[in-house]
Amino acid sequence: MPEIIRPEKLRATGKLTGKARPLGLSDDDFEQRRPLRGQITKREVRAVSLYSLGLRQDSIVWDIGAGTGSVSVEAALIAHRGRVFAVEKDLDNIGLLERNVERLGKDNIEIVAAEAPAALDSLPDPDSVFIGGSGGNLPDILGLVGQRLKPGGRVVANLAVLERSHEAYHQMQQLGFQTELVMVNAARGKELRDGTVRLESLNPVFVVSGVRPGDPPGDSGE
Amino acid sequence: MPEIIRPEKLRATGKLTGKARPLGLSDDDFEQRRPLRGQITKREVRAVSLYSLGLRQDSIVWDIGAGTGSVSVEAALIAHRGRVFAVEKDLDNIGLLERNVERLGKDNIEIVAAEAPAALDSLPDPDSVFIGGSGGNLPDILGLVGQRLKPGGRVVANLAVLERSHEAYHQMQQLGFQTELVMVNAARGKELRDGTVRLESLNPVFVVSGVRPGDPPGDSGE
Amino acid sequence: MPEIIRPEKLRATGKLTGKARPLGLSDDDFEQRRPLRGQITKREVRAVSLYSLGLRQDSIVWDIGAGTGSVSVEAALIAHRGRVFAVEKDLDNIGLLERNVERLGKDNIEIVAAEAPAALDSLPDPDSVFIGGSGGNLPDILGLVGQRLKPGGRVVANLAVLERSHEAYHQMQQLGFQTELVMVNAARGKELRDGTVRLESLNPVFVVSGVRPGDPPGDSGE
Amino acid sequence: MPEIIRPEKLRATGKLTGKARPLGLSDDDFEQRRPLRGQITKREVRAVSLYSLGLRQDSIVWDIGAGTGSVSVEAALIAHRGRVFAVEKDLDNIGLLERNVERLGKDNIEIVAAEAPAALDSLPDPDSVFIGGSGGNLPDILGLVGQRLKPGGRVVANLAVLERSHEAYHQMQQLGFQTELVMVNAARGKELRDGTVRLESLNPVFVVSGVRPGDPPGDSGE
Repeated sequence: MPEIIRPEKLRATGKLTGKARPLGLSDDDFEQRRPLRGQITKREVRAVSLYSLGLRQDSIVWDIGAGTGSVSVEAALIAHRGRVFAVEKDLDNIGLLERNVERLGKDNIEIVAAEAPAALDSLPDPDSVFIGGSGGNLPDILGLVGQRLKPGGRVVANLAVLERSHEAYHQMQQLGFQTELVMVNAARGKELRDGTVRLESLNPVFVVSGVRPGDPPGDSGE
Repeated sequence: MPEIIRPEKLRATGKLTGKARPLGLSDDDFEQRRPLRGQITKREVRAVSLYSLGLRQDSIVWDIGAGTGSVSVEAALIAHRGRVFAVEKDLDNIGLLERNVERLGKDNIEIVAAEAPAALDSLPDPDSVFIGGSGGNLPDILGLVGQRLKPGGRVVANLAVLERSHEAYHQMQQLGFQTELVMVNAARGKELRDGTVRLESLNPVFVVSGVRPGDPPGDSGE
Repeated sequence: MPEIIRPEKLRATGKLTGKARPLGLSDDDFEQRRPLRGQITKREVRAVSLYSLGLRQDSIVWDIGAGTGSVSVEAALIAHRGRVFAVEKDLDNIGLLERNVERLGKDNIEIVAAEAPAALDSLPDPDSVFIGGSGGNLPDILGLVGQRLKPGGRVVANLAVLERSHEAYHQMQQLGFQTELVMVNAARGKELRDGTVRLESLNPVFVVSGVRPGDPPGDSGE
Repeated sequence: MPEIIRPEKLRATGKLTGKARPLGLSDDDFEQRRPLRGQITKREVRAVSLYSLGLRQDSIVWDIGAGTGSVSVEAALIAHRGRVFAVEKDLDNIGLLERNVERLGKDNIEIVAAEAPAALDSLPDPDSVFIGGSGGNLPDILGLVGQRLKPGGRVVANLAVLERSHEAYHQMQQLGFQTELVMVNAARGKELRDGTVRLESLNPVFVVSGVRPGDPPGDSGE
């Protein structure tokens, strides 16, 4: 059974006392891995992915391959009465994930230090699943998502590799999900010394998302 | 003084009773103008823009050039304890805006049927301002935003025109804002009859955003 | 055996007498199919594809799926002492291809009204092969190219479909070719009434190209 | 008067004896500046720019800001009976330019080691002008091009900076040129260790081009 780091270990720092921080962090707000810096879900792609997750205030969210935790801490802000599970198999990475969650997150995030899909067995069924990268076993993870995702729930995968992108697309379709693929190809303005602006491209990312048919389990509103 | 359509006129329909709808609507969820269909802020650009607005649960939001209301109804979901003002000068468009807000929005949205910047005088100072298009008087609008935006607040403009994009960028800088420009260049997968997928590009949109320096007015947390 | 329309049938019109036309036609210079207008290899993609073909003045070129002939007439200008074979299976399209070749081409273009790969048996071995679209039998065509392409020769395929793009990439690799994939994602400026410019995207196209190892058959220079 | 390095100094090396090299060099074929490596006109943008130059076999070409010479050596292959002037002000760069021209070029290239627009006075009127970068005096250079470009001739500028791109566009229009702007936004496939392919973006480049109205000076064909 995976170690789950319970929220009581994650005390929000001063930044989170008083007025809640706004949604919309920049990439530099996160502590990132070295020398693998740059593997964070980029702000623009994070925005599209978060938006595609179909979050509600009380959503149960799985963030698989949580990495720096950039998706978890933002999802936790929108799903502020729900629960976010940040699943990360790379134990060298857990300290960084913990620090980002402590500094930028909320107490509705739990870190699961184990490998998906096995790590997911002990978690409650999700309303929204984010898959930050294939990690080699995307088919198995999507297979489990096919069993566990609630009706009306959504899964979003970020993929850089062409082959993985349409494999994920076709697997989501075979699961009966309403499936979409978007390539996000952003470029950021960089100001030169004379004040003019040129564009620096981010690498294209394929955001593949699926919605499980059906109505979400009823409740009494927010 | 502009007509403000108060929330009591905007009764949520059945869709909003029971479980709240999730964040993340598709473009087809909105009633759109004909024959100007296509002028809606596209889903991918809406995601980046919403994320850049720095929304909190209690934010005061101005959505200037609200159009179909696609940004207002989503901002209102994140800022569910705040207030969203959907400002639209095109009176032919107000009916459509009202219908989208009624069907997809929340009761924290107020429609302001008047032209910016004059329309903005009677509104409370904003935490977040979205400008959906230049409409010819972007400099005046940004000038007013420079006076009214709260410390720590953010303004986000969506621009298609090259010249307007860096004009907005430079004006935000002159206002002392921490300014960024991002070109969002997405393409959507389109499935062919044989099940394979090709990409259809959306037009590039420049998302120019600025943050007013300073700490947001303190409060007692969320 | 396919009908080959010999150059003697293709008399250059007045435009081609006197000073030769320059390289670099716009899409509107070509007569295009209706209602399938838009299926022409777009100018920007045509440029990248032509450049990737490794043309010399005396190249033998196969243009497979020649369509409007936009690649053939430009390749023929660069390979002005070589031969260009415009292969097109769609007989309804041949008239249009003929007219474009007559008006914009040179007398070193021959139209082959038949389906590849069978149509290619009677043609001389190529230095450069352009494949304008998969047409369903890309693997067979690439297989034949693997047998017939001269050492040092190049093959370039334009593909819109994700799955076909990396299939072509991997097949070229298996043929022992030095293989590259480029996604071309251009946007064209469109001038508005007030003289400002916004961008209209073309759809992304994957340009997959391979070079057969080895030195081209020696000759005594150009 | 600028030093013009005459072709007799530029003896083609062994590579150019025997069969002429094909059009379509890769970026790695050129010796590049260190540590400024990366400032070469990228292959995909070079392709679009060359194609937009409207080259004929006998064209007079100015390559302003020739840099590594990547455009000059390819233009010289298409305009093999014309003359190409590679104009470069940065004297530290001339050695590199000379070596690339010697190794990859033809004897119809002349290097002009001086700054534009002054450097252009002694050159014959051009059919095609390429401007590889603004270098601060783009308006002056375009002004001179307005006086010297032959009827039917074309000018192509590569620009990274937003402000410069539409300035160039509008200046070409004011010169009475038929003007176009294209943003080229390519991404290259990069093969991972497992053989799959992901995309790495190049930075967007604006290719702004203008055609001077009128027929080119008549001649008796090629």
